[in-house]
Amino acid sequence: HPQMGSIPARSGLVTAFGERPPFHPLNDDDVRSYLHKAVDFISDYYKSVESMPVLPSVKPGYLRDELGASPPVHPAPFDVAMKELRASVVPGITHWASPNFFAFFPATNSAAAIAGDLIASAMNTVGFTWQAAPAATEMEVLALDWLAQLLRLPRSFMNRTGASRGTGGSVILGTTSEAMLVTLAAARDIAMRRSGAGISDLAVYASDQTHSTFFKACRLAGFDPTNFRSIPTGPETDYGVDPVKLLAAMQADAMAGLVPTYVCATVGTTSSNAVDPIGDVAKVAAMFNVWVHVDAAYAGSACICPEFRHHLNGVEHVDSISMSPHKWLLTCLDCTCLYVRDARRLSQSLETDPEYLKNDASVSGDVTDLKDMQVGVGRRFRGLKLWMVMRTYGTANLQEHIRRDVAMAKMFEDLVHADNRFEIVVPRNFALVCFRIKAAGVRADDEVNRLLMANVNKTGKAYLTHTVVGGKLVLRFAVGSSLQEEKHILSAWELIRKTISDMMKYV
Amino acid sequence: HPQMGSIPARSGLVTAFGERPPFHPLNDDDVRSYLHKAVDFISDYYKSVESMPVLPSVKPGYLRDELGASPPVHPAPFDVAMKELRASVVPGITHWASPNFFAFFPATNSAAAIAGDLIASAMNTVGFTWQAAPAATEMEVLALDWLAQLLRLPRSFMNRTGASRGTGGSVILGTTSEAMLVTLAAARDIAMRRSGAGISDLAVYASDQTHSTFFKACRLAGFDPTNFRSIPTGPETDYGVDPVKLLAAMQADAMAGLVPTYVCATVGTTSSNAVDPIGDVAKVAAMFNVWVHVDAAYAGSACICPEFRHHLNGVEHVDSISMSPHKWLLTCLDCTCLYVRDARRLSQSLETDPEYLKNDASVSGDVTDLKDMQVGVGRRFRGLKLWMVMRTYGTANLQEHIRRDVAMAKMFEDLVHADNRFEIVVPRNFALVCFRIKAAGVRADDEVNRLLMANVNKTGKAYLTHTVVGGKLVLRFAVGSSLQEEKHILSAWELIRKTISDMMKYV
Repeated sequence: HPQMGSIPARSGLVTAFGERPPFHPLNDDDVRSYLHKAVDFISDYYKSVESMPVLPSVKPGYLRDELGASPPVHPAPFDVAMKELRASVVPGITHWASPNFFAFFPATNSAAAIAGDLIASAMNTVGFTWQAAPAATEMEVLALDWLAQLLRLPRSFMNRTGASRGTGGSVILGTTSEAMLVTLAAARDIAMRRSGAGISDLAVYASDQTHSTFFKACRLAGFDPTNFRSIPTGPETDYGVDPVKLLAAMQADAMAGLVPTYVCATVGTTSSNAVDPIGDVAKVAAMFNVWVHVDAAYAGSACICPEFRHHLNGVEHVDSISMSPHKWLLTCLDCTCLYVRDARRLSQSLETDPEYLKNDASVSGDVTDLKDMQVGVGRRFRGLKLWMVMRTYGTANLQEHIRRDVAMAKMFEDLVHADNRFEIVVPRNFALVCFRIKAAGVRADDEVNRLLMANVNKTGKAYLTHTVVGGKLVLRFAVGSSLQEEKHILSAWELIRKTISDMMKYV
Repeated sequence: HPQMGSIPARSGLVTAFGERPPFHPLNDDDVRSYLHKAVDFISDYYKSVESMPVLPSVKPGYLRDELGASPPVHPAPFDVAMKELRASVVPGITHWASPNFFAFFPATNSAAAIAGDLIASAMNTVGFTWQAAPAATEMEVLALDWLAQLLRLPRSFMNRTGASRGTGGSVILGTTSEAMLVTLAAARDIAMRRSGAGISDLAVYASDQTHSTFFKACRLAGFDPTNFRSIPTGPETDYGVDPVKLLAAMQADAMAGLVPTYVCATVGTTSSNAVDPIGDVAKVAAMFNVWVHVDAAYAGSACICPEFRHHLNGVEHVDSISMSPHKWLLTCLDCTCLYVRDARRLSQSLETDPEYLKNDASVSGDVTDLKDMQVGVGRRFRGLKLWMVMRTYGTANLQEHIRRDVAMAKMFEDLVHADNRFEIVVPRNFALVCFRIKAAGVRADDEVNRLLMANVNKTGKAYLTHTVVGGKLVLRFAVGSSLQEEKHILSAWELIRKTISDMMKYV
């Protein structure tokens, strides 16, 4: 056809088959076809992930070698990207979705959350102010108020109580670290205003079991590292913070002319799931006007069940609490929920009011502008997936999900108990079992525990990680990956037993 | 059937139809069915969004009234959530995806990006360290190195140059504000180490056109607000910063015993798309060892076209640059790319090394642990969607996309020029047109410009926002929403003309 190709294409690219049609990034055929291919991939992935090595064996830089160091000039069918995803990306993934994943904490997930996140990606609203995306802001506030009820948080943390607006506030952030950072900034500014002290006179507190990201957040907020107090813990409190030691530390600082400013208490530490006594921490903190934040990133989700709620006792006396449904409430990343008792204290440190964002709704004071509760300005439609999880599954299924994981963890704990080669290191609070080889016929030092872990992990049939508790290397077995069933726990246990038996032949 | 329902269901809930099956959040049937329903919704939404009012008219609190103040106890079919989404959420959305959206900056999007984000949600990896998700880290590094080539950034910003690792580094963050914050923390720590000064002696700089989130990030990082320098700009530099004034401000601070620490230069300000002269800013900054960051959040994407690349001239002399493909490179939120010339300076301020994240790969030093370049620890599979965009569309289509938007903006600019009731306020650099009613037959004060905007917006047929430039209220017409075509620009212009004609009848 001699005429084809003779008209210059709008893009200037003329192919052998004539001009290329104009580029439409949201062409309906492409939207449907790319997303259907993605759904097929996901369905296949979930069916086959169980049989893949949990921990891959790729080498640093491998992906560049496989996919090329430079971007392509010309477009390619979407199938090319999907083919490369299957061939090159999947084999290099540590499969958090695998039912044989027992490392860190699980990143739980659900069909409703993924669908909600997909719709958020497609609507692609940017809800910095209420007016910029009213339903996105309202949905986030609603989902957070619903979750507050599941957690039986005091009404003082809710955005709205009854028909009127409360003093509390909440926001969905990307990570716990961001929740710490924004509350640290608020506490810092309040302490400086109240005391007249400089930033380098402010002191912050946490137990030695608190996630390392807390002191990183303190550094980010400009606190002086010489004023970071890490309170030692031990087995006598199951590694929860001792309020007497916390009091002594705050008293010593106050005597030395420093200003105790912020304490982070944890419900379910990353290392061993230790629980700080929130009520006692708050009592001590109140003596010094110290901001109390509760980090319940993982274990907060369990507190939707009445039998676990007591771990939050005392929360009515704290200033803020954060927990992450992306850990244990079936909501894919990112989803960290931060609640504060006095939203104005947060916005005083975080609000901005540039001309180009001014609008009548903000001026009215009747609305929440979520940019004033976070680090950045822009934000996704973050509440949708969390709402879809609660709307579709209901409290009943969410509680069943927590109880099932805890029951499976208990089953694993019982198996470990029954094997005299192992010991449980700390009492199990939730769905994490901390255990190690004890001195009974085999060497029981850190090295042999590390070897057991390495040997298990290199089979590709399970992946568990370690920590150090009380100076000893401990293996962490975290139950709850969303495709996990009892049979996977049993297989992992058999693998551990077989691995140690094989090791014993040589020790 | 008398036996059905007699066995207690695992969840304890027995329905009229017998026991409920155990709850599986990633059941294959649900995954496929929920996601297919979501895809159908998206396809319908894109087809119908053009006819919806761009700016909704809902009242604060409306969603709670429609969806209920408390979470449901019992599960519901996914169709219920989808029905409520259509009935209650969609009417409350400010439709960033509408082709009639001209407010703020567009949040551009594409089928490839949405599919990539969907797959990331489903795989739900948490790539804090390389080992925790090697392919996710490698993909992020690869996508960033590809994008660096599209932008013709100096090799010093790339993770890998040739086969070996460079000193540069990059990371995908949620927002520009986070990019500012982490680089501010690095610059702050370097300045304090080098000078021995305290944090309250450090000074930071930006033009008065810089996004307000910059000084918010400075406050977050603990800088003293009395040391924030906002350099005035004017029409004589088209609102770009004057290096002479910047030099004078730094000199005055240095003379006063302060330590000039960080300057933020912008390529394409939010207000009017002004461009700071990067090379000249870097020359001034070098005299005082000041960290130079370039915020190219919006306009950075245009620099993939050779004809716009000159706006980045001098970037080889800066310390860091960030730009957001979620604004203008067809990649849905969140996607802000931060490049730094010396990755170690960033990780020195941001790294953590808790026992439970220790692994052989990190110890080897051969890998990038992305947690050490961001605020938090956890992170999604962020690189996938950006890679899919570049892989599928190729540089050719991405450049066509930029050029098409700029051509449409120029068309609008020409229409405004040809109407003697309006004036163009600042020269158009990219796809944002800043205009206002000028004194020609109609009142031309801020109030009438504001009224024009309000009258246009309340039709629901277009949405534009305002700013203040040079003390005057200015209307911003931002072209580029991903479903936009020439006809939408023409319709919006007709609407603006009709609206002002109607207004003239009464003034």
